[in-house]
Amino acid sequence: MATKMIDMTHGSGGRSMTRLIEDLFLPAFDNPWLSAMNDHAVLGPSSGRLVMATDSNVVRPLFFPGGDIGSLSVHGTVNDVAMAGATLLCLSAGFILEEGFPMETLSRIVSSMAASAKSVGIPIVTGDTKVVERGKGDGIFINTTGIGFVPETVSLSPQRVVPGDKILVSGFIGDHGSAIMAVRENLSIAGQFLSDSAPLHDLVASLIKSGAEIHCLRDPTRGGVATLLNEIAAQSGTGALIEEEAVPVRDEVRALCEVLGIDPLYVANEGKLVAYCAARDAERLLEAMRAHPLGRAGAIVGEVTQNKGGFVQVRTSFGGYRIVDWLSGDPLPRIC
Amino acid sequence: MATKMIDMTHGSGGRSMTRLIEDLFLPAFDNPWLSAMNDHAVLGPSSGRLVMATDSNVVRPLFFPGGDIGSLSVHGTVNDVAMAGATLLCLSAGFILEEGFPMETLSRIVSSMAASAKSVGIPIVTGDTKVVERGKGDGIFINTTGIGFVPETVSLSPQRVVPGDKILVSGFIGDHGSAIMAVRENLSIAGQFLSDSAPLHDLVASLIKSGAEIHCLRDPTRGGVATLLNEIAAQSGTGALIEEEAVPVRDEVRALCEVLGIDPLYVANEGKLVAYCAARDAERLLEAMRAHPLGRAGAIVGEVTQNKGGFVQVRTSFGGYRIVDWLSGDPLPRIC
Repeated sequence: MATKMIDMTHGSGGRSMTRLIEDLFLPAFDNPWLSAMNDHAVLGPSSGRLVMATDSNVVRPLFFPGGDIGSLSVHGTVNDVAMAGATLLCLSAGFILEEGFPMETLSRIVSSMAASAKSVGIPIVTGDTKVVERGKGDGIFINTTGIGFVPETVSLSPQRVVPGDKILVSGFIGDHGSAIMAVRENLSIAGQFLSDSAPLHDLVASLIKSGAEIHCLRDPTRGGVATLLNEIAAQSGTGALIEEEAVPVRDEVRALCEVLGIDPLYVANEGKLVAYCAARDAERLLEAMRAHPLGRAGAIVGEVTQNKGGFVQVRTSFGGYRIVDWLSGDPLPRIC
Repeated sequence: MATKMIDMTHGSGGRSMTRLIEDLFLPAFDNPWLSAMNDHAVLGPSSGRLVMATDSNVVRPLFFPGGDIGSLSVHGTVNDVAMAGATLLCLSAGFILEEGFPMETLSRIVSSMAASAKSVGIPIVTGDTKVVERGKGDGIFINTTGIGFVPETVSLSPQRVVPGDKILVSGFIGDHGSAIMAVRENLSIAGQFLSDSAPLHDLVASLIKSGAEIHCLRDPTRGGVATLLNEIAAQSGTGALIEEEAVPVRDEVRALCEVLGIDPLYVANEGKLVAYCAARDAERLLEAMRAHPLGRAGAIVGEVTQNKGGFVQVRTSFGGYRIVDWLSGDPLPRIC
């Protein structure tokens, strides 16, 4: 297996493609829907409102401290569905492979996807494989699309966010982006950084179970917490005031960001969420967050303000204020 | 707009990406789910068994007689969902763009997707955009994932296929592959060929409504009718016997295939289906098929046999027999 490579026949619809599916994908993802080998999966009836989310994953490098493109592609879509307060049902997986991509690397990535999906408890029920010529792709791109159902009692959206709401972050920010940056820059200290890539469905379930009045949940991936705050402000017609000292940032992440001239608020996360909740329930929500393994370092970091201009402000540790604007360039391409 | 190009900032999560979404995707796909601008879409409750299908689209050229990557990406996934006998609910769209891709071309493709989705009557409810560096992609790849619901009364699968079943094809085969081949080979006669790319959900609804006992539906895309016949034979533990003269092939497609040394049975279709039904209902199903605009040239082409080896045989116009095996190479890469 070690020297085998993807060639154009693996995307042909013919015998090679069928063998790839039967030898690699079916055993790894092992579930009755995929094994039916239709071009679709038929699942059982479900109740509640349906939620759908999609992610195309182009992260580089393919393997990084704390994860790889396979686990990231599962966690990313799981988290997008979970942020609606949904219970996850299933995932699809679409692969775009470049001719010459090592079969052994594909196998490692697929195993990682399978392990991640298993840890979340959801099947990868249908898939698709395409192969492009050498030089027309970049090894592997993975699309994952997820489906879940939200119970009628749960309603989370930016439109529910109102001035006075408290803003919570579920833990240390900037870990994923720092791990990627440190590896890409070939820093000798790269071993200190670990992506936070993780599935947040169970943390979300705990937060909802706390009974706190949550208005909105979102995960601060590309563009980091700063971008998320600006998005929610724009979508809810509010502003936000963040206490810089309250935002959990690891010392080594802060140091790396200083060296690279990047604000940790803009650095991507893959296992964190930001919660907006009614002020009176903030402490209760924080307690539920910290009681969960993925929310131990959670914190109340600020509140929603009336600013109609959608300004997001940070009160610095020196007591000054600065505006945290939308990102205009792209400091870190292909972070997910 | 004509000279604008995709750059890395369009995948950053920042202001450029938000503008791309607000200026291009939201107006084109225009629906409340997408306009909510969450990382997921929340839809209403539905009943029946859920069906999911996914396709990553890498077709070249991007525009071809009879369609483009945009319409193809919608039709392909619509058809995969429809083959389960499902009513379509919604689609997601994931874009992987190469730095330098012209904004105007993206805009044309997105408009085509929007028009196709509109003609099918389904919303594109959620999406994702990634940008890769110049030379790391090939202009544009599109993943579309679709969801539908199958009523409890409908059950279509290869496992229901039994010896004696009749096999129907819904019209002329090989049109899509021929259109792509003629353009790629730069043939002067390329104008004679038109892809059959079309959404088959309504034809499927008509077939089901006929009351004929249909056992399985599948669309013969990559690898053509021959590959489909082999798949179903393997999955149902049967064989198949096809009457070559009964298979509808346009004269010009037959001529092109002869010149290129390809059997039309292996050439891709994007607007045809193959139906397996109880023998006694074959004529009724054929009547329903021909009554639909997308099934006018439909025909009964053969029947399911007891061959446990999964052999697919063709009785030629000269009365001889030949085995139609799995495709082993890839005569036509990136057909969809």
